[in-house]
Amino acid sequence: MADIEFRPTASDYVFTFGGVAPVRKVEPGDVLRLWSEDAFGGVLQRATDRPTELLDTRYLNPQTGPFYVEGAEPGDTLVLHIVDLTPARDWAASTTIPFFGGLTSTDRTRLLQEPLPELTWIYQVDRTRNVALFEAQRPVAGREPFSVELPLEPMLGTVGVAPPLREVRTSLTPDNFGGNMDTPEMRAGVTVYLPVNVPGALFSIGDGHYRQGEGESCGTAIEGAMDSTLIVELIKGRAPAWPRLENDEFIMTVGSSRPLEDAWRIGQVEMVHWLGELHGIDHLDAYQLLTQISLTPIANVVDANYSAVTKVRKSLLPEVPAYDAIHRDLRARAAGVR
Amino acid sequence: MADIEFRPTASDYVFTFGGVAPVRKVEPGDVLRLWSEDAFGGVLQRATDRPTELLDTRYLNPQTGPFYVEGAEPGDTLVLHIVDLTPARDWAASTTIPFFGGLTSTDRTRLLQEPLPELTWIYQVDRTRNVALFEAQRPVAGREPFSVELPLEPMLGTVGVAPPLREVRTSLTPDNFGGNMDTPEMRAGVTVYLPVNVPGALFSIGDGHYRQGEGESCGTAIEGAMDSTLIVELIKGRAPAWPRLENDEFIMTVGSSRPLEDAWRIGQVEMVHWLGELHGIDHLDAYQLLTQISLTPIANVVDANYSAVTKVRKSLLPEVPAYDAIHRDLRARAAGVR
Amino acid sequence: MADIEFRPTASDYVFTFGGVAPVRKVEPGDVLRLWSEDAFGGVLQRATDRPTELLDTRYLNPQTGPFYVEGAEPGDTLVLHIVDLTPARDWAASTTIPFFGGLTSTDRTRLLQEPLPELTWIYQVDRTRNVALFEAQRPVAGREPFSVELPLEPMLGTVGVAPPLREVRTSLTPDNFGGNMDTPEMRAGVTVYLPVNVPGALFSIGDGHYRQGEGESCGTAIEGAMDSTLIVELIKGRAPAWPRLENDEFIMTVGSSRPLEDAWRIGQVEMVHWLGELHGIDHLDAYQLLTQISLTPIANVVDANYSAVTKVRKSLLPEVPAYDAIHRDLRARAAGVR
Amino acid sequence: MADIEFRPTASDYVFTFGGVAPVRKVEPGDVLRLWSEDAFGGVLQRATDRPTELLDTRYLNPQTGPFYVEGAEPGDTLVLHIVDLTPARDWAASTTIPFFGGLTSTDRTRLLQEPLPELTWIYQVDRTRNVALFEAQRPVAGREPFSVELPLEPMLGTVGVAPPLREVRTSLTPDNFGGNMDTPEMRAGVTVYLPVNVPGALFSIGDGHYRQGEGESCGTAIEGAMDSTLIVELIKGRAPAWPRLENDEFIMTVGSSRPLEDAWRIGQVEMVHWLGELHGIDHLDAYQLLTQISLTPIANVVDANYSAVTKVRKSLLPEVPAYDAIHRDLRARAAGVR
Repeated sequence: MADIEFRPTASDYVFTFGGVAPVRKVEPGDVLRLWSEDAFGGVLQRATDRPTELLDTRYLNPQTGPFYVEGAEPGDTLVLHIVDLTPARDWAASTTIPFFGGLTSTDRTRLLQEPLPELTWIYQVDRTRNVALFEAQRPVAGREPFSVELPLEPMLGTVGVAPPLREVRTSLTPDNFGGNMDTPEMRAGVTVYLPVNVPGALFSIGDGHYRQGEGESCGTAIEGAMDSTLIVELIKGRAPAWPRLENDEFIMTVGSSRPLEDAWRIGQVEMVHWLGELHGIDHLDAYQLLTQISLTPIANVVDANYSAVTKVRKSLLPEVPAYDAIHRDLRARAAGVR
Repeated sequence: MADIEFRPTASDYVFTFGGVAPVRKVEPGDVLRLWSEDAFGGVLQRATDRPTELLDTRYLNPQTGPFYVEGAEPGDTLVLHIVDLTPARDWAASTTIPFFGGLTSTDRTRLLQEPLPELTWIYQVDRTRNVALFEAQRPVAGREPFSVELPLEPMLGTVGVAPPLREVRTSLTPDNFGGNMDTPEMRAGVTVYLPVNVPGALFSIGDGHYRQGEGESCGTAIEGAMDSTLIVELIKGRAPAWPRLENDEFIMTVGSSRPLEDAWRIGQVEMVHWLGELHGIDHLDAYQLLTQISLTPIANVVDANYSAVTKVRKSLLPEVPAYDAIHRDLRARAAGVR
Repeated sequence: MADIEFRPTASDYVFTFGGVAPVRKVEPGDVLRLWSEDAFGGVLQRATDRPTELLDTRYLNPQTGPFYVEGAEPGDTLVLHIVDLTPARDWAASTTIPFFGGLTSTDRTRLLQEPLPELTWIYQVDRTRNVALFEAQRPVAGREPFSVELPLEPMLGTVGVAPPLREVRTSLTPDNFGGNMDTPEMRAGVTVYLPVNVPGALFSIGDGHYRQGEGESCGTAIEGAMDSTLIVELIKGRAPAWPRLENDEFIMTVGSSRPLEDAWRIGQVEMVHWLGELHGIDHLDAYQLLTQISLTPIANVVDANYSAVTKVRKSLLPEVPAYDAIHRDLRARAAGVR
Repeated sequence: MADIEFRPTASDYVFTFGGVAPVRKVEPGDVLRLWSEDAFGGVLQRATDRPTELLDTRYLNPQTGPFYVEGAEPGDTLVLHIVDLTPARDWAASTTIPFFGGLTSTDRTRLLQEPLPELTWIYQVDRTRNVALFEAQRPVAGREPFSVELPLEPMLGTVGVAPPLREVRTSLTPDNFGGNMDTPEMRAGVTVYLPVNVPGALFSIGDGHYRQGEGESCGTAIEGAMDSTLIVELIKGRAPAWPRLENDEFIMTVGSSRPLEDAWRIGQVEMVHWLGELHGIDHLDAYQLLTQISLTPIANVVDANYSAVTKVRKSLLPEVPAYDAIHRDLRARAAGVR
């Protein structure tokens, strides 16, 4: 149960899930303290910086990893517990990349209109007071400049393993291997269950967000370098079809596809199966029960696949710990990790 | 400011938005106490009842109304404040209607597979303890019968006005006129802002749910007759393009369309405009701000259009009351309505 | 077997399917000679005309009808055979309506980008030579003015009956009642089979296109007033779930919904059923057979629902005339109609 | 200008675009004579063969290639001209794979219904008479056994290059790199223009279909081993954003994404740009022109992305040969290739 710190150098960054050699081997039980660069590679630093001038699509969303988990075999379940997420800088950036985002045409929803203007917002971050300062960039005639402090709610946009079927996907993609799901549920205190597709699982993380609304409307959150503390665990077998999450209050599933209803359907069916496993009920009863208790925040409507979360509040149901109560155990161990 | 009680008889039910004469004229300021039948017309009463035997698609989701609001003209904003929703029965029903629901093929997502089995769940409702009893209908070999009590969280699936452009839509449809949006946000304490499309607005309500998860997965919530208390108000002009909601904590918009991402886009753009109006900021700044603070629970993925909600927590932003603080005023008046 | 000519006056136009009284009663066997205005109500006449200045959304796509067919009852099949379509003017118009069309954001695919420029193209029509002249409206520096003559291929964008379930839909909408399907297959020589939903069927036609590509990309074809000659027939019972078409070469089905794959699925399942009926084969065999012989031109990706056509070439299969060979009979009768 | 024959052994097959070493280097101008296995790896041979027993998802759709094209650099345009496609066997297979296909729920459109039955159809192929025999597999009570001969129309389901951005995709996927587009337009006489993303382009082909309807409804065409004769060419620079095709009659574009309307939009915008390039017209004039002349057969609604084709008949427009008339040149050279 090593305590491993890893801070990638520029040459360590990877931009895919799959297709790259591991930076390190880790053991189940290890604590990892990882630094990750922001999704822009750290190059957007001023409100006058323009994405088309500074961003190179080949180097977006650098990942920290991948890590080879000893003993992980296809069909196993990789377990990652997020102990802590701490912003690593006192500023962060967001921007409107032309033809990228939820309320613009894109390379897929390809239309003939002009792109939205390129703008960059630099957020000053006060880590003591736990706030980031939004400042409006486009003055409105006759109005005072607008600014507002928003509470920090750090999360990781990207957590994933190597895909199945020999695929290599960019770190901009969420799918059944996890990846760029961009859900605010990926915060400290959550346990993530991912299917292992290749020996060693080869997981990586990145895309720290100091805060993000559900949907990630414009495509970029309050993007910032992040210090992440994780505990790695492994369950032999029992690989879920799609990513599952658990925190003290909820069990959750994440589906990623297009159109958005398919992302939702994936997460819902995964939850029907999970409820069936946990409570020993038929899938039609689980369907009915889920109908009345499901919470379904959208995660992203901007990435290569859209992602939707299905949540079930654990307190509504009889207490049946998932995966042999590993989340509870990890929470206890996390308390001992500073 | 009359206090009007209306309990429809069987011949009073309507099954459309638009296309029917009003049951009553009301004035802005009036309090309405309305009884509504459940979405099944009250015919599903036993777990052995089968929808294909008992339900007639011509008589689904009976509405209470429509009401003609004196002074309401196209372009105005109808305001409905939900003072109270109280289950009117000590039982409620849910069911799997063949080829209807979110995790089955339908008349639109038309496939060749066999339908899911028809099942009916009758929930016993304890209004004192505020719970409904879910009982699993399909025994699983080697397992105890499963049941669980779920807290009541009464809501209205359907609140709407007559559509624009002379259209008449079934009460199963949500769209820019409101209608069958099926969002759990439609509960006591919420104020609804709807565009007026025809003289008198011609609003109706119905489809009481004693509880519903987000998405309404199987297509039917815990469906029950409801006693609803509303206050009716009217704002001249200022019609929103799509339904807006407000409660003490949130301002909200609801988009309804297919695919689901379009429902989300509609609600998001409506909120971008609303934030711009309230805070005097450019739409690109509102887009950026919304990106970081949006909450986006799905409402339904089962109706003629899918619905998605966009929520913004009011406490995150400078205090600027919407619509001249009419919600606050209505909350105060509601306190005086028993 | 009357021969009826009907040319609506301005006050005769209707803008919905359902919700309006019939202009005339007709009998099965009657020949109808109908004049229809263009989808713009005839108001776009010059290349400088701008849709936002001249078009009123309440008066788009005027229909000629509805006609009450004696003897038509819900569950019956209305049969319309298009004997002839002849352009009624020597000019026609097309335009880019802001936020309407397939390659722009819309009121549903609601985005934040600026609309495309409003442009109008007036086509000079030479009915002798059967061509319409396209002239480019936006000069390109250093290039000659561009123009090209396109062959006329007259079709009706809109053919439909009153909807089921008491609904009234704008004439801009295609659905299971037919309506604004905008398929180039709706040309002279085709027989249309529509489900009857209300007594008398209440069908109407309109939206003449002198020519249209599949998909109707920008939302408006070469729109022109049309002289249509139809024969009306009625089959008792046997209502298809969705519109079916037949010409000398093909049997066809049309599905209309969103997203576009659902429109396709609808038409495909309808064709699986039709092949099963005609050839006495199981639906899985029909599915396999259709997989190898289906032709699937998209009809529209711009209307309230998108439409997709499924075609099967009759000569590929054993000769089994559909609907008791009524198409062949109508073709023979059409030969006798001038 | 070599004339190269290549018949892969079992160990030569590849199952991805990208991520594998080339089997051979070729020069622009070379003629390639390639054998490809069917999409099932040749294992479905009898009507009693069941896909879940015999197919391994890791070994579906084996590709012949990849070939490294000397001189091809990112940004260049790979040109492949299909001289000839000849069925290499006297039988072929099609099947219903559980949860795969257009009229069933899938791993993405994930629902709770039971899968369709697994069936396999073996087609006897008469290469002299150019027909394949369909035989119904599920007898219908009281009906004669049904069979019908269908004309062979050989095509390649899969033609693609290595993807951009370091990605590796399964050979089941169509995207901007081509791949599993499954369009019947990919037949003898067509010239394909693909963007080069990596040095050498690394193209491969496979997935021979002796015949396929548009949409590939059940997910598998009449799948058979194929002898393909190609000419390889290279245009420096000028990479299209998405695959373009040309035959004697049409220029064509192919978009691949989900939902299906996005696949259509991609191909349409690509064609708007192509028309603009060819005819020197503004994109709004090209949009208008395309609206009136576009043909849009769906290619597939079953693969990882859906594909839609946009076609423009060359004879409708002034003669402006695309890519310096390379198609005409290739047709001439093809005539000299036996």
